[in-house]
Amino acid sequence: MKVALIGFGNLGKGLTRVLLEKGDYLKEKSGVFLEVTAAVDSGGAIIDEEGINIKDLLEAGQREGSIAEHIDGGEIGTTALDVIERVNSDLVVELTPTSIKDGEPGLTHIKKSMELGKHVVTANKGPLVVGFQELEKLSKEAGVEFRYSATVGGAMPIFGLAKGQMSGDSISEIQGVLNGTTNYILTRMAEEGAPFDVVLNEAQELGIAEEDPTLDIDGVDTAAKITILTNSLLDRNVKLDDVKIEGISRIGPKVTKLAQETGNEVKLVGIANSHTLEVSPKLVPSNNPLAVKGSLNSVTLKTDLAKEITITGFGAGPRETSSALLGDIVNVYKSVEV
Amino acid sequence: MKVALIGFGNLGKGLTRVLLEKGDYLKEKSGVFLEVTAAVDSGGAIIDEEGINIKDLLEAGQREGSIAEHIDGGEIGTTALDVIERVNSDLVVELTPTSIKDGEPGLTHIKKSMELGKHVVTANKGPLVVGFQELEKLSKEAGVEFRYSATVGGAMPIFGLAKGQMSGDSISEIQGVLNGTTNYILTRMAEEGAPFDVVLNEAQELGIAEEDPTLDIDGVDTAAKITILTNSLLDRNVKLDDVKIEGISRIGPKVTKLAQETGNEVKLVGIANSHTLEVSPKLVPSNNPLAVKGSLNSVTLKTDLAKEITITGFGAGPRETSSALLGDIVNVYKSVEV
Repeated sequence: MKVALIGFGNLGKGLTRVLLEKGDYLKEKSGVFLEVTAAVDSGGAIIDEEGINIKDLLEAGQREGSIAEHIDGGEIGTTALDVIERVNSDLVVELTPTSIKDGEPGLTHIKKSMELGKHVVTANKGPLVVGFQELEKLSKEAGVEFRYSATVGGAMPIFGLAKGQMSGDSISEIQGVLNGTTNYILTRMAEEGAPFDVVLNEAQELGIAEEDPTLDIDGVDTAAKITILTNSLLDRNVKLDDVKIEGISRIGPKVTKLAQETGNEVKLVGIANSHTLEVSPKLVPSNNPLAVKGSLNSVTLKTDLAKEITITGFGAGPRETSSALLGDIVNVYKSVEV
Repeated sequence: MKVALIGFGNLGKGLTRVLLEKGDYLKEKSGVFLEVTAAVDSGGAIIDEEGINIKDLLEAGQREGSIAEHIDGGEIGTTALDVIERVNSDLVVELTPTSIKDGEPGLTHIKKSMELGKHVVTANKGPLVVGFQELEKLSKEAGVEFRYSATVGGAMPIFGLAKGQMSGDSISEIQGVLNGTTNYILTRMAEEGAPFDVVLNEAQELGIAEEDPTLDIDGVDTAAKITILTNSLLDRNVKLDDVKIEGISRIGPKVTKLAQETGNEVKLVGIANSHTLEVSPKLVPSNNPLAVKGSLNSVTLKTDLAKEITITGFGAGPRETSSALLGDIVNVYKSVEV
């Protein structure tokens, strides 16, 4: 299967490293044979319809500037859209930076790919927050696979689970601890009794929190993820604005401590069911599977048969996210190459 | 897809109830159309190649004796093997009582079904404990689907997860709390400080523990499940005898209490990796996703990409187990009827 990599930041590089490392394993175990025919970043593209040498691509990615500058035949100035339109590929992997405001440029990339009959795998939340049902419809009309496991919860295979093994169940409610940064801060406050600002600083130094952590702390990132989960698993058509959002900035170590003394943990929880769609700090009993620590993520699905299934995993990191991307890619391969 | 139900005890009845309840939902949501052409218990069979009326079947199942006695045209004395050999069915659902000693009668039922080119879904641990690799090989040679989600952890969709969405990951270790009875006893001892015998009695009265709970308490049930997980997910060929087993009968409320005071829980844990294959009571940190309470089950997979994924759910109960059976059935349908 010919693959075009759209976006070559941390996630693109992480996935490429995994493809290099596991290419033989995938061929042997699952009969999956992947060729990268294009990779493009904001400065240009590398294109080879016979299959790019992955090692060379990774080396180019380790240097300053665009990958196009560091490989023979690299095309400076060639854009993602050029690549999608021009290069022979069966699958487009969309990994450009996300915007939950308008979903661009990912939204345009994904639509164009589908229109051209290409399957899409993405880690990009923005396009799904803005236009989930539109993209679902487009993928069905075009007869292409559309998978987005990496958009919610990094390595946590929630969509594959709900749509695969649990497809006999009807899901009535989703509850999730979906943001590693806030969960790390809440966990550290509870454990150490340290003030919010101190813990946030620590998280930034460790690279767990971003320079500007507003979207995490205000609950918007969690709301974006609960929006995607709601549209995908409850088959609704909700927008980010429909989510009632409260962040964790008013939570201090006194509250987290007091919670622990009563056998609870404070968690930033997203909830979606037929009458509720909200993100807010909640008291979760310590022995509830949702009460995960540190940068772990966790989602509980309430269903008619299984009652409650919880899945817990690492919600971020290029290698962990590659688990979700690669799972999606393998499953696209399997559903196509029969 | 024509389905033969082999065994009509609690699980068979539970699944049939779910088929009645969700038939329309499955048709609408997944395009899955199922017809039960035969159901057989130890006393006889009901057969209708045009599709048995599910409501009549359920009513027959609620009465004393064999279902064959309570429906017009019921065949008293017809055996499971007769049904597998004679009745037109694409899928055999094997739900007879389990024997982890020789796997019979399930082992013979499953082999015969595969030899006749029928897909197999089962909740029966015995045949997989005794002959997993043989059955895997046979299913491949016969070109039939073979799914067994319900054999481990009831509703917990661990196989579908590992072989579906996580198929890009290499699994190196499995850890599991896989027996609801022992986990209930350990949880109650820790919470109430009540002695082992008292809690066991309570569990028996609630129907959580069986009349003869030896296989649970001695760790043999957990060992059977870790044997299946090891053979399926680590692609090994181990036998029940290869598992080093220690049960929970030596654990008292003093130990569970002491564990809690140090931030831990005592759990009966099965572990499988390249150098260990054992079941024993272990101290698990309270905030570890494996430290589930009551009759919940939990499995952690350690992998090269996702690092750790934990899945938690109800490990028993006819309705919960129907979640796994139905998921398997839907996935057989999808992989066959393309």
